[in-house]
Amino acid sequence: MDVRTRLARNVRRLREAKGWSQEAFAHEADIHRTYVSDIERGARNPTILIVEKLALPLGVTAGELLG
Amino acid sequence: MDVRTRLARNVRRLREAKGWSQEAFAHEADIHRTYVSDIERGARNPTILIVEKLALPLGVTAGELLG
Repeated sequence: MDVRTRLARNVRRLREAKGWSQEAFAHEADIHRTYVSDIERGARNPTILIVEKLALPLGVTAGELLG
Repeated sequence: MDVRTRLARNVRRLREAKGWSQEAFAHEADIHRTYVSDIERGARNPTILIVEKLALPLGVTAGELLG
């Protein structure tokens, strides 16, 4: 499975486990909501600094977020 | 520790464990040698598809490479 798909699934799973909408999570991660939506569709190829920004509010490491 | 620094250390450690020079590893990963050198100095912020390209010849996942 492509690393973008693994990231997409992990972000969605962990975000939902927190009970956050995409908008709430975007606010926590300080990232635009449409960017979160794109990530969860596997439609982005983010840099590792962005992955770290996503990982922080989800309580995991950047590495864990890539599965 | 910054995710770029963790990536840098992991790439260097795993590359050296394979007995590869930066040039040999660059060839295996199909990435330019100077890019490998930059990665190992923590001077790059690669995308996750690049991290996957680096991880493959090292026998680890992209996630493991971010530590």
